[in-house]
Amino acid sequence: MNQIEHRLKRLFVEPGDGSAGAAAELTKVSAIAESFVEGVEITTDSDLETLMRRFNSSEIPEGTMDFASYIEYVNEQVIPHSIHTSSPLFIGHMTSALPKFVSSLEMLTTAMNQNLVKVETSKAMTLYERQALAMMHRLVYDFPDEFYAENVQSSDSTLGIVVSGGTLANVTALWCARNSSLGPCDGFAGIEKEGLVAAMRFYGYEKSVIIGSRLMHYSFKKAADLLGIGVESLIDVPVDRNNRIDLAALRQAVRDCQMQNQHISAIVGVAGTTDCGSIDSLLQMAEIAREAQVHFHVDAAWGGPLLFSEQHRHKLAGIELADSVTIDGHKQLYLPMGMGMLMLRSPLSARSIEKHARYIIRPNSLDLGKRAMEGSRPNTSLLYHAALNIIGRRGYEFLIDEGIRKARYMAAAIRALPEFELLGEPEINILNYRFVPAHLRERAPLDQLTESDDLLIDSLNKRLQKIQRQAGRSFVSRTTLNVVRRGEDRPIIALRAVLANPLTTESDVDAVLKDQIEIANQLSIASSQPA
Amino acid sequence: MNQIEHRLKRLFVEPGDGSAGAAAELTKVSAIAESFVEGVEITTDSDLETLMRRFNSSEIPEGTMDFASYIEYVNEQVIPHSIHTSSPLFIGHMTSALPKFVSSLEMLTTAMNQNLVKVETSKAMTLYERQALAMMHRLVYDFPDEFYAENVQSSDSTLGIVVSGGTLANVTALWCARNSSLGPCDGFAGIEKEGLVAAMRFYGYEKSVIIGSRLMHYSFKKAADLLGIGVESLIDVPVDRNNRIDLAALRQAVRDCQMQNQHISAIVGVAGTTDCGSIDSLLQMAEIAREAQVHFHVDAAWGGPLLFSEQHRHKLAGIELADSVTIDGHKQLYLPMGMGMLMLRSPLSARSIEKHARYIIRPNSLDLGKRAMEGSRPNTSLLYHAALNIIGRRGYEFLIDEGIRKARYMAAAIRALPEFELLGEPEINILNYRFVPAHLRERAPLDQLTESDDLLIDSLNKRLQKIQRQAGRSFVSRTTLNVVRRGEDRPIIALRAVLANPLTTESDVDAVLKDQIEIANQLSIASSQPA
Repeated sequence: MNQIEHRLKRLFVEPGDGSAGAAAELTKVSAIAESFVEGVEITTDSDLETLMRRFNSSEIPEGTMDFASYIEYVNEQVIPHSIHTSSPLFIGHMTSALPKFVSSLEMLTTAMNQNLVKVETSKAMTLYERQALAMMHRLVYDFPDEFYAENVQSSDSTLGIVVSGGTLANVTALWCARNSSLGPCDGFAGIEKEGLVAAMRFYGYEKSVIIGSRLMHYSFKKAADLLGIGVESLIDVPVDRNNRIDLAALRQAVRDCQMQNQHISAIVGVAGTTDCGSIDSLLQMAEIAREAQVHFHVDAAWGGPLLFSEQHRHKLAGIELADSVTIDGHKQLYLPMGMGMLMLRSPLSARSIEKHARYIIRPNSLDLGKRAMEGSRPNTSLLYHAALNIIGRRGYEFLIDEGIRKARYMAAAIRALPEFELLGEPEINILNYRFVPAHLRERAPLDQLTESDDLLIDSLNKRLQKIQRQAGRSFVSRTTLNVVRRGEDRPIIALRAVLANPLTTESDVDAVLKDQIEIANQLSIASSQPA
Repeated sequence: MNQIEHRLKRLFVEPGDGSAGAAAELTKVSAIAESFVEGVEITTDSDLETLMRRFNSSEIPEGTMDFASYIEYVNEQVIPHSIHTSSPLFIGHMTSALPKFVSSLEMLTTAMNQNLVKVETSKAMTLYERQALAMMHRLVYDFPDEFYAENVQSSDSTLGIVVSGGTLANVTALWCARNSSLGPCDGFAGIEKEGLVAAMRFYGYEKSVIIGSRLMHYSFKKAADLLGIGVESLIDVPVDRNNRIDLAALRQAVRDCQMQNQHISAIVGVAGTTDCGSIDSLLQMAEIAREAQVHFHVDAAWGGPLLFSEQHRHKLAGIELADSVTIDGHKQLYLPMGMGMLMLRSPLSARSIEKHARYIIRPNSLDLGKRAMEGSRPNTSLLYHAALNIIGRRGYEFLIDEGIRKARYMAAAIRALPEFELLGEPEINILNYRFVPAHLRERAPLDQLTESDDLLIDSLNKRLQKIQRQAGRSFVSRTTLNVVRRGEDRPIIALRAVLANPLTTESDVDAVLKDQIEIANQLSIASSQPA
């Protein structure tokens, strides 16, 4: 046996004394993971340019590094400069601390390495995934028991599709919607076979569009582009003062499309916009979609788990009328990155995207890959299952209620501080605000800021957010919101906080705001001094 | 603190004595993982119907299960009925044992939970991913050092895109190809903005097509459907006796499209077909694509890592001329499910799919999400990096060479056994064969089988494969191949073996064949007796 062969065998198989070696490896990595999670800093203050130089080589080594040396390198040179997304003071993006059991389960999932594209490489896990999907379907649609008895394990039915994230769920939803509404009929084999150009010609449409609020996630731009519809045919309807889609404008947009002989692939409602957490009026949107006989999709990637909360689920009223619903596992189901789900009201609607191959996913099989965008994929359903069982309805309810309670606490804290302007009441656990320099504080609440005032505040907040990120002690993100000033729409830069981490306390919220005031005061002083 | 709150806090945070608890959890799960991987059986003989009844409920529990009870349930009721994909006797699909370090690293990745969509939630990991992509780019294209110095960490450049698997890589490649070839110009904002119907009208084409061999992966059907091209416009060119695309037929197909005023989105070459491992003549295909000025994509999801082998890399000659190349991490890079990559020859070609949002992936950022199909996604680059460093060039070379050597061993074993017919020499590590009942063995090699003989053999092999799978001792898959009989194409059922697992020995190969002979003999006897 040559040296390479010997080394390779050791990587894959345990020699006689190997178990001790593997256990030591796991203990080492586990200690690194723990120390990372328990760390206080969000990141080091190393700047990107320095790090870019560090990771600039592109040679593949011949292969002489052992695992211990590699993990030591990563622990010293890479991990400290990554982002502590689970920190209680990192309240700027849709990340959180995760329940501790997910790391162990992910290790198990990797060791088992099931491939959920087909039964032959997953067997029970395929059925287990179908069960997890049915549980989520029931959460959204709550159909009668007989419906589930019939559909949970039927190869004819697709209650939902597990995907790598909300973007793919949204794209898949629009794909099903487009294909179902331009399906086969006498003289036409359907858009799936003949394509969009032939479909428009056969059905006599000018083009196809997608309609939703201007706060739709950017994944709908990807969907519109991918599906051949084009980003310009993604119709952005204005929002009202609560950042919900303007229903009158939506009705008008639908009428306009009908008048102009345009095919509407779908109407999209958002349950928890990324910018500000607002939730469209789903019940009314469902009614508009029903009247127009158009697929109604709800992007509840963020807001879906509000369904667990007795107190807040009314905000999603109407979601049960949606033809399809996106929910992310890696957002408010508190699961690791790479987990999304599309729920489908009709167990038959995914047939419009069905595909087969010669060696797998044959027509009557239970293979999940036959109605899916992805092919080979990991067994994330074990994590869905585990979380639904271990956290459970009441646990998720608690997490949702707490996030919204803390967002209200933060809103109150912001209102109480003269340095900040709260930009709208938070509907759920996302809120927007900004720092206002002293000389403009009196005018801000009276809607008396001029455009140049706003530009000055924008620039200050942009720099504030950059400095806060760079310093690595605490973090919020920023976005651009449209506000109405004397009847006119104006884009302004807003700070954006997401309160989803159960480890974040009220004093953490106070600390983030205090950090910002200090940074901003230094900036204000600096900018008011002569250069 | 109420009971739910108390339980939740324990799931997320370690109380004073918690570390011991978490360590115990990890030890328990790690023991389950180890016992699974070291098991002998591929699966239990429980049938799907029995398991379907077990996983048929769809109620979400209120949440009373602790982790220990949950994992006990999974270990007893679910795991034994999943598939031991890493078994040395499971040689039917593109799975293998994985190097042991990947489980620990996946645990670390989960604990760190970076989101690679943007720098703000990954920082160094974004740069680390760019570096891993550059390493793979160099493997495929081997451009001069200056090219990499300029492009590895430049926000303008995209050397590759990390995706959840080969299907998304192929779809992304075709998306870039379609958009680049129908881009903006005077009087047209480009297909990305205006859509496919407007693009066809503006450029004066009848429709768009994709051309490749009939052994293309089924993900190209998904791509054709998704992109609005339609599955019927995926032009399947016949293959030659070695299962490579027929180059004369390809040239003709290109000419036909040009004559009929059809836009060709891409020509697709395959490096390692799923059915039989054949590799198209990439050099000649690149030349045909260049002449026609069409994007040339190579699906090397399976075969890409042949580039590591001095002995076999010549089989991929021409891949360096491809505009885009798919390579799967979870195939012959021996990484866990959920890892694919698209490599791009030009660092600028992904600009044709670029998207932005208000809160992230702004135009000049380094955010990886701006040129990608997926949004939020996990830090799989740590695994690519680790494997390229720890396994290294020489390690991968050994793995590739060994797989092909074992496939040749198996081919020889099959030729030596009168019970089997070898269906073509394996080009790499995938091979096709079938069991032939005693009374037809003399005629098979002489190309004298009638259609009804083939149908009888088909039915026997189909049942053989099902029984072998159900018994759970060993596994090969099956597919449908076209063979030429007296000048006529005929589809026949073939057994399909994939020799990629470094744990599979020659005696394992013998054992799989022996198992099949025993099953088939029982079947032959049963079927020759009166009912």
